[in-house]
Amino acid sequence: MPRWKPDAKQRLVVAALSLFAEQGYDDTTVTQIAERAELTRSTFFRHFADKREILTAGQATLSRLLAEGIDAAPADATPLTAVAAGLERASGEMTAFNRELSPLLHAAIEANEELQRRNALKSMGMAAAMVDALKKRGVAESTAQVAAGLGVLAFGIGYARWADPSRDEDPGELADLTRAAFDELRAAAADLR
Amino acid sequence: MPRWKPDAKQRLVVAALSLFAEQGYDDTTVTQIAERAELTRSTFFRHFADKREILTAGQATLSRLLAEGIDAAPADATPLTAVAAGLERASGEMTAFNRELSPLLHAAIEANEELQRRNALKSMGMAAAMVDALKKRGVAESTAQVAAGLGVLAFGIGYARWADPSRDEDPGELADLTRAAFDELRAAAADLR
Repeated sequence: MPRWKPDAKQRLVVAALSLFAEQGYDDTTVTQIAERAELTRSTFFRHFADKREILTAGQATLSRLLAEGIDAAPADATPLTAVAAGLERASGEMTAFNRELSPLLHAAIEANEELQRRNALKSMGMAAAMVDALKKRGVAESTAQVAAGLGVLAFGIGYARWADPSRDEDPGELADLTRAAFDELRAAAADLR
Repeated sequence: MPRWKPDAKQRLVVAALSLFAEQGYDDTTVTQIAERAELTRSTFFRHFADKREILTAGQATLSRLLAEGIDAAPADATPLTAVAAGLERASGEMTAFNRELSPLLHAAIEANEELQRRNALKSMGMAAAMVDALKKRGVAESTAQVAAGLGVLAFGIGYARWADPSRDEDPGELADLTRAAFDELRAAAADLR
């Protein structure tokens, strides 16, 4: 039972992910997505340029938020503190809709090699956005790659804990979970031998 | 001018990557690949189950070698030493053919969104193989993820330096380049604040 009240755009995303899970990404058409959402094709095209954008729109937003958070960190912030600011920024924008959507997205990805590849590219895109933002601050390439790599891992772990459908209790804020995961990984990195 | 003398399998790989770069992965058929390689379709099917396997066979081998190297590291090896053993093992198996192929593979990936996604999944697969191998040694999840992440980055940097077509001089051994990249990343990780 969804706890969010979906608008047209959200209904289209839910319909699309359900169809991707059921019949694959390649075999799903815009017409089918609109029908499942009980909306018209022209409503679809008011929100998305094509089927692909259903997946890429969220990814582009996430990369942009991570980079913005890093850009906005104080000039004297260390690389890890800057990445933490990026994670904070991106986590803060994720809504109850993102959380409810997660099991559906997960099912669609599990069922589809094509979506697995797209999801992998999303992680690489997040890392690249953070590396670029860190390099703009004068951080050396190797350091930027390691810090961004920790950031991507932390966001993934935090998100998975936040969206875990087997949790009955309120998981709390995504930003807190991501910060905790980032701290664990920082500690692991500092302990590495 | 290739410095390796290609056998049938290698000719098929070169033909396939050239066609993927020219006309896309989806639009390339096994018949076209065999024709370009001046071989028959049945020769193709002696080496590969399908077009997809041209890309995945190398990826599966790489993940296996990384895991084997980690498995074979001394029981008292630290997580990073175990990852270094995995990189050593995988690097040692890469041949002059892999090196000559790299610009072609790069061109095919640049030209193709589909191949970009497949390549991203390859990095995730390498990381997952190393995480699993480290966890089998009793390494904690967070530590395994960070150590494997550094390993994937190091292999990517070492490989890029090895295969860089703009280098006139002999780049030396891939294993040395990967080890140097890994040492840089370890130092960057140790310096992170």
